[in-house]
Amino acid sequence: MPEEPLTVQHLSESELLARIFPRLHHSPGVLLGPGDDAALIAAPDGRALISIDTQTQDQDFRLEWRNGYRTTGFDVGWKAAAQNLSDINAMGGSATSLVVSLTMPPETAVEWVEAFADGLTAAIVGLGASDCSVAGGDLGRGRELAVTVAVVGTLAGVAPVLRSGAKAGDVVAVSGTLGRAAAGWALLESDIQFDNLSSELRSLVVNQCRPMPPLAAGPLAARTGATAMMDISDGLLRDGSRLAGASNVILDFDPVALKTYAASLEPAAAVLGREAMRWVLGGGEDHGLLATFPAGIQLPQGFTAIGSVQAVVEPPGSGVRIAGQTADTVGWDHFAD
Amino acid sequence: MPEEPLTVQHLSESELLARIFPRLHHSPGVLLGPGDDAALIAAPDGRALISIDTQTQDQDFRLEWRNGYRTTGFDVGWKAAAQNLSDINAMGGSATSLVVSLTMPPETAVEWVEAFADGLTAAIVGLGASDCSVAGGDLGRGRELAVTVAVVGTLAGVAPVLRSGAKAGDVVAVSGTLGRAAAGWALLESDIQFDNLSSELRSLVVNQCRPMPPLAAGPLAARTGATAMMDISDGLLRDGSRLAGASNVILDFDPVALKTYAASLEPAAAVLGREAMRWVLGGGEDHGLLATFPAGIQLPQGFTAIGSVQAVVEPPGSGVRIAGQTADTVGWDHFAD
Repeated sequence: MPEEPLTVQHLSESELLARIFPRLHHSPGVLLGPGDDAALIAAPDGRALISIDTQTQDQDFRLEWRNGYRTTGFDVGWKAAAQNLSDINAMGGSATSLVVSLTMPPETAVEWVEAFADGLTAAIVGLGASDCSVAGGDLGRGRELAVTVAVVGTLAGVAPVLRSGAKAGDVVAVSGTLGRAAAGWALLESDIQFDNLSSELRSLVVNQCRPMPPLAAGPLAARTGATAMMDISDGLLRDGSRLAGASNVILDFDPVALKTYAASLEPAAAVLGREAMRWVLGGGEDHGLLATFPAGIQLPQGFTAIGSVQAVVEPPGSGVRIAGQTADTVGWDHFAD
Repeated sequence: MPEEPLTVQHLSESELLARIFPRLHHSPGVLLGPGDDAALIAAPDGRALISIDTQTQDQDFRLEWRNGYRTTGFDVGWKAAAQNLSDINAMGGSATSLVVSLTMPPETAVEWVEAFADGLTAAIVGLGASDCSVAGGDLGRGRELAVTVAVVGTLAGVAPVLRSGAKAGDVVAVSGTLGRAAAGWALLESDIQFDNLSSELRSLVVNQCRPMPPLAAGPLAARTGATAMMDISDGLLRDGSRLAGASNVILDFDPVALKTYAASLEPAAAVLGREAMRWVLGGGEDHGLLATFPAGIQLPQGFTAIGSVQAVVEPPGSGVRIAGQTADTVGWDHFAD
């Protein structure tokens, strides 16, 4: 008879924490880590960026997908860290610490929680945020798995890059991938079993489960004079229209530039009978950056021009266009249907 | 026919946010508030305290209790803010900002969410943390209501007060109430309908649903030379044994001093056939402070001496005692049975 897996209801909170702590990365910016009522972290320039994000089972991820893939604790830890690190990146900052609240059913395997901690660490280190560490957290019970991460970051003396600074004449650029996570979601929700996917298609699933925000790009963009920036979490068109609205401008995307992103998704589109460009325009969760830069400057490393900023000259006002044509702001949630 | 209440599924995220934002308190320490990927807050002494806490429906609160009381959005907002503000207080700091993640079923009434925002603001202002404000947040869907708050605070240049600094000879003191929230929980879980309670007993229920951490006391204790401090969230004996363990000392409580706290709970104890002293010793969630101070100094305002710190001289080592007798470290979760 196989041994029953050890579940969290068999351990006290302190026993569970004793299994988690050794798996976490440590950085010197955490002046006082877990063990007291609050952690103390360095905020060297006298300011701190802060953001919070929750992932809930069956809303943000499924434990088992239609194509047979099972989301691991490692995936959930990675994604929770990655999407929060991305929020700091999008302001031009670097993350210094995470605090993590994990709510789980009592029958959750202890192994799952250990893998979750490993995923947090792997994302922090693997994405190049090694000045960041988990400063504290909270464990609790609930009917469904839910992870909330709050992230703190530093701007290291530079001004934050807001959504509202784009000016007519600026270049629109992106860093990171577009549409890969959405293609991965479509594969996860398809009838084609994960085990039967080619390694090329599997890598799209990995992009959905373990996004790779380009964390060097945000601070570099801030130092290079980006006029506006944000994280692409809900899709290029939807997030682009938010940036356009905040800046009261029009973002006009170049379809030729976007086709390059679609090209790499054609194999998945062919297998699923879908249109790759819709993933590029509507797919979120790659957590790339959308930014605008003054015309004429050399774009910082990792950014690719995909369009230009234009002044609003007539109704319906600010928004996104593709080669001058109005584009529907279809985003990830319509897209996921 | 009564009108159907407006629920969150009828509004877009931005429509819901537009109803929440005007209800939030603003403070100058939030340099950049909601609207970008992260908020920017001041950390004037180059450091920031941070903590995170989750409350989940049916774990941390019931929407409807056995005694008929219905938890309001205001209650949940108040408590979420209060217990996080308390974590900063327990380090000797003052909160500067909260980020709030609210996960809710689609059928949650919009009115409930508005009351939740009002509760956050009422706690911040009512508890005297008016330099603190909500800097950002996240709204999401789930099968159950869950609220996670991360709080950031400042020590204003002083050293944090840890759990590990208590020394033999120190005075043990508390600030705030003891056992009132636990008595309130017992009333909520009883058969005596809320509407039939006297105003004195109702006030205990209010202490459970809207705790009143003594937020002036933490920074004052830090400036007065407290050697150790923590928030009493799981009960005096359990939290006391944690502080004793971190400091490797014995906390010896004076039963005469504790009886004063029990006296005010006697009416509730009589009605329920319970023992008031058990609430004082085992009840958490009042979010008072447990602190130690060097002998001979005048205790800061709001603190009452309840015992002394003694050296560990023999097995079983550190822990809590009552008049020299070993005390079981019964805490809130045993207690709530």
